[in-house]
Order: sequence, then structure tokens, then C-alpha cells
Amino acid sequence: MPTKAAPQAILEPRLLCGPGPANASPGVMEALARPPLGHLDPDIFPILLETAQMLGAVYLRDEGDGMSIPLSSTGTSGMETGMAALLEPGDTAIVGVNGYFGRRLAEIARRYGANVIAIEADWGEAVSNEKILAELDANPGTRLVAVVHAETSTGVRHDLAELGEAMKGRETFLVADCVTSLGGSELRLSDWGVDYAYSCSQKCLGMSSGMSPISISQRALDHAKAASPDYNFYMDLALLEDYWINRPPTYHHTLASPMLFGMHEALREVLDEGLEARWARHAQAGGHLQEQIRERGMTLVADPDHQLAQLTAVHVPEGIDGKEVQLRMLREHGIEIGGGLPGAPAMWRIGLMGTNASVETADRVLEALDAVLADAPVAAG
Amino acid sequence: MPTKAAPQAILEPRLLCGPGPANASPGVMEALARPPLGHLDPDIFPILLETAQMLGAVYLRDEGDGMSIPLSSTGTSGMETGMAALLEPGDTAIVGVNGYFGRRLAEIARRYGANVIAIEADWGEAVSNEKILAELDANPGTRLVAVVHAETSTGVRHDLAELGEAMKGRETFLVADCVTSLGGSELRLSDWGVDYAYSCSQKCLGMSSGMSPISISQRALDHAKAASPDYNFYMDLALLEDYWINRPPTYHHTLASPMLFGMHEALREVLDEGLEARWARHAQAGGHLQEQIRERGMTLVADPDHQLAQLTAVHVPEGIDGKEVQLRMLREHGIEIGGGLPGAPAMWRIGLMGTNASVETADRVLEALDAVLADAPVAAG
Repeated sequence: MPTKAAPQAILEPRLLCGPGPANASPGVMEALARPPLGHLDPDIFPILLETAQMLGAVYLRDEGDGMSIPLSSTGTSGMETGMAALLEPGDTAIVGVNGYFGRRLAEIARRYGANVIAIEADWGEAVSNEKILAELDANPGTRLVAVVHAETSTGVRHDLAELGEAMKGRETFLVADCVTSLGGSELRLSDWGVDYAYSCSQKCLGMSSGMSPISISQRALDHAKAASPDYNFYMDLALLEDYWINRPPTYHHTLASPMLFGMHEALREVLDEGLEARWARHAQAGGHLQEQIRERGMTLVADPDHQLAQLTAVHVPEGIDGKEVQLRMLREHGIEIGGGLPGAPAMWRIGLMGTNASVETADRVLEALDAVLADAPVAAG
Repeated sequence: MPTKAAPQAILEPRLLCGPGPANASPGVMEALARPPLGHLDPDIFPILLETAQMLGAVYLRDEGDGMSIPLSSTGTSGMETGMAALLEPGDTAIVGVNGYFGRRLAEIARRYGANVIAIEADWGEAVSNEKILAELDANPGTRLVAVVHAETSTGVRHDLAELGEAMKGRETFLVADCVTSLGGSELRLSDWGVDYAYSCSQKCLGMSSGMSPISISQRALDHAKAASPDYNFYMDLALLEDYWINRPPTYHHTLASPMLFGMHEALREVLDEGLEARWARHAQAGGHLQEQIRERGMTLVADPDHQLAQLTAVHVPEGIDGKEVQLRMLREHGIEIGGGLPGAPAMWRIGLMGTNASVETADRVLEALDAVLADAPVAAG
């Protein structure tokens, strides 16, 4: 076959203001391009431990409790790792479903043999903790309750602190999808009693895609390790612990050093900025965007009491071709915004995450959106 | 917690001549550092298809037969994906085991519920095709035969062409671990009748770690899709096909664009060089190294009739502290060579892969090894 030239399109930088990936910081871009290091190099092991320690600090997991590491695969693998580690066939799992990722969580729990009780809410609404707790009371042996802290498909925040408080003292594990919250809004795993959380690298942490930072409490890790090591090998937490944390280390997989360097740098930058300052920066940028969107007469998908700052889902106004608007934002302004995921109502999803969480970036997006809408593409049919 | 400075160690480039990762080419390093592109950007989809097409060409899989794509996770995930896709609990799997990775293959097949018949050979020896075929005749409903084409723990090549020829016309799937062979030595999936092969990005393809390029025949893919979609979601080939190949594409996971760009460029460079020229370059470099090693009175682990060129396992000479030699190669010469994996005899593993497959690089390694051995660290006890 003829060989292909390097694609030209990828040479034009994008401003990535969809639901993720966001643009990585200059420091992270530099880290990704560093010369590679072997996965068993003696100099890599201190970097692994520092990365794990910094990740625990960003998750606000108490030092010494369990393990916080990034997996060498994307966010969805973090979701799957938790279900694979904590569920045995026949276990009961209560799952909050108010969008695409809650639905995926329920599907994966079912694949691993769980009896799933889905607590549903409409797209844009938060799942009720009251309903979850009632179901938990009705099913006392429930293995885990899983909710989406920040639903990437709608921009809705779950009241995770409240749920964690109510579940304290129970044996049931609390699992949270923090794909869109980690590094962008308040999240305190130990205070809130979250046993297992997973996220991604490419949103509020400001790294490239490619890793899934997870955090598991000691009691959940003990449970996972006591269970028979069935199915998943790549995502086996005991084997990952033997490489990342235990010394001497045992080979498990060939960790990509560019990803490790990028993650290390991203976490370093988050801690350097300070968690509360970073959350405030995301709140300010997203608040500004949302105010401006509403001022333009457009409506938001999320219930205002549960609106995330870092991700804003906007109903496509009646008569407008939403997909064409996205394409023109990209082609005429070099800005990516997202559309709705399968099953969702027509929407745009605008993310101001990581490096892009600023009022200036919000204004750039708004200016481009105004320009496109001034000459609005009309929906077909 | 105090934030960490960027680790200094990673700023000193290494010459990576262990069993992988190898150093990436300059073109690939440049590709890895390109500005990111969203995983649903309209411009990413042609790149996905080009990458899949080029990967099929590098694997020598006939166009139109099945699917060849890189997974967003490392080589071991490609091993697991094949076992998860092709095996149902109770299926029989015949697995060749003559080193660390054959053993891992058998373990993963067992995790997915297979009745595993392991055909063993000593470390350094090839697994006998005769024994495999006898076992296959004795177990006519066998779902798959899996062998390690290039055993990364010993540098042994399996006679895959011969096995494939003998299995033609059977329903049993042929699976090959090509982690160390793809791009470095002769491999012809369609001619040889290999149904499922997996590899890694960081060895003879000359990319960074982080992806697992896999290739599956149409009949094996049909089988995987007809089976119930149990367990693995992240590695579900039907869902991956819906994102990578089928149009319109369906979101599955957030592909890391740096990895995609790196893989696209690596495959482009392989095809640009030409497969046979690239295999010959690896053969020349490895042949030179092996001749020089033998001239120094050291012995190789692999049976000479099955010695890979790209990976040379050397017995640590009596009385020498092999690990200390590795450390001094790294600290005094900036060169990584590998040691033995758990369960293996004491050895060094020297890889000349991808960009590093040259006589010049072999001589650099030999010169450093000579210098270290001139003042040889003696084994303790």
C-alpha cells in the first residue's frame, strides 16, 4: 500500500472546549515530549511513588489509606476496574443513572455479574440520595453504591458529600465517577467516605488523554484482593500495587513513560496552584460562561442547583442545526465544543477545564458562538 | 503535601537497548508532542482509518479481512483482549509455554474460564509444533491454539508459519503473541493463517509504549461478536469497531491523540522503509551483536535455530553480578539493558529494535559492556 504523509489537520492547534480533552498546559506538553525511560529503570520507581502520593493528595485521600494510582488506559477503564475489583457475580449494586455515564456504569456492573438496581433521573436532573438510601435500606447486603459525581453528558453534579455522610458506618462501598470533577471542583474522598473513585487525565487535571487516575480505600482494596482473581488481568489492582507501590517492584505492564511524565507534571501543577484556588478558578470561568449563555436567552440542561462549573450543557435553540454550529466553530474559529452523546437531547457541551478554565477562554468561546449564531445554520426538516 | 519538582533523572536521555521500550524515532517524538485533537473531531476519523489500514499492511493481513487497530493500553491488554474475545468458560485452549509471556497467556486464558492445555518447553527452547498438533488432534473442539511468536523473556522465535500451515482448514483459531516480532522480523498474518495477533508500540515499531496494535481475522471477529458480550467493556472488539471502523462512528473511549499521532507516524515510517528492508536491518544488527557476544566467550539463552535477531538473551557469566552490570551500564554509559523476568535463569536481555536496530548501536552496547566487564562486579555469596 502507498504510505501516508503525516495528516495536515493535526498540525492546526485547536482550542478544546468540549467535554474533554482540554488542552494540556505547556509544562505538561513539555513533559510528554521528554526522552523515554524504561518501565523498570531504577529512576522510574521514585517517580511512580511521587505520582501516587500526589494523586492521593489531589483526591484528598488520607495518606496511608489504600492506593491512588493512574491506570495505563483511559477513563472508562477506571470505571471498569472498580466494577471488576469490587463485584462478584450475584452481588447487588445500586447505581445512579441520570445520563450516559451512569448508564455505562450500570452496564459494566451487569457485565461483571451484578444484580443492578438503577436509580434513575432525567437527563439534567440529579439522582436523589433519598431514593438511593431507601433502596440501600431495602437491600442491606448491597455490595456497592455507585454514582456519577460529575455527569459528563449533562454537566450535573451529584451531592456526593451528603451521600457519603449518610452511608458512613455501612459495609456497602461507595463508588464515584469523578471523570469530570477531579481537579475542577470540590472532591474530598476521605472526608466523604468514597471507597473507589476514578477519573481521566484529559479534563480538569490538564493532561493528555491516556490514563485513568483511580483511588481506592484500604477496606475496598482488601476486599478486592481477598476475592478470587477472576477475569481482568490488565486491571488487576493487586498486580498494579505490586508494580506501583510495593518494593521491590514486580513487572506487570510496560508503563508509558511519556504518560507518566505528563501525569506527574499535571499533578504537580494542580498542587502548586492549590486545590481550593483551582476549584475557584473553574467556578469563576464556568459561572461567567453560564451567566452569559443565559443572558443570550439560551437555556442550560442541568438543574441550576446541581450545575457543574467546568461543564456547561446548553440546549440547542429551536430551529438551529446544532451539529452544523459545532462544525463551524471548529472550521471558522478553531474551537471544539461537544454535542450530545447517544440518547441525549440536542445540546452543546462546553467545557472550561484545566488550563482552559478562565474567563478569557470563556469569552473567546462566546465570541465565536455569537459570530456563528449571527448567521445561524437552520435545522433541516 | 509539598509539591515535587520535575524529576531530574528523566532529563538525561537513555539509550534503550533492553527488551523494550526502545527509543522512538525523531519523527515519532515530534508526533507525540503535537497539539491534541479531540477523539470525536471530524478530522480524527480519517486518521483512524489510515492508521488501521497501515497497521493491517504492517501485519500483512489481507485488506478486507477482519480488523487491525491499536488498543489504547499496553501490550498485555492486547493479550487479554484476544483471550476475552475468543474464549467462553469451558472452552479448550492449547497454549505454548516456554517463558514468561507464554505463562502469562496461559494464566489469562484460565482467568477467562478456559480449560488450558499448556505445551511446555524449557526457557530458551522453542515449543514443538508436533506436540501442539498432537494435542489438537486429541482435542478436536479446541477453541484456540496460542503461541508466542517472539518470546520477549528469552529471545526465542516460534515456527509460526509452519504451525499456521498445519492448522489450515481447521476451525480452531490460531493466536500469536507478536509483541517483539511486529516490525522486526518476518510476520505474515494472512499467509500464515493467524486469526488473532497482538503486539506493543514500543519495540520494533519504534513508538512509545501506550498502545497495543492488534489484528483479528473476520472469522474470529464474527465469533467474538456472536458470543455474549460478557465481562470486558474497555476491550470489547465490537464497540472498538464501532468507533475505529464503522461510520458514523460511535463513541467508546477517549482515544489519546498523542498516542494516535505517534502510532500513525511509526507505521508510516515502517511502510516507508519497507517491511523486508526493516526485517533485514534488524537481522543484520542482531546478528552482529550475537556474533560479537559469542566471540567474547559468552553464551546465548536461545536455541540457535530459533534465535530472534531483535532480542538477544545472554547468560550472565559465572561469578558475575548481572544486576550490578546492568546498573553500571545505565549509570556509567546511559544504556539500558534488561535482566531476567521472574522465574527466568540469570540473564541479560539486549534489544536492538526500531530506531536502535543498527550495527552502530550494537557496537555502542558492546563497547560499554566491555568496559564494565573489564572491571567486573563479582556476584555476592
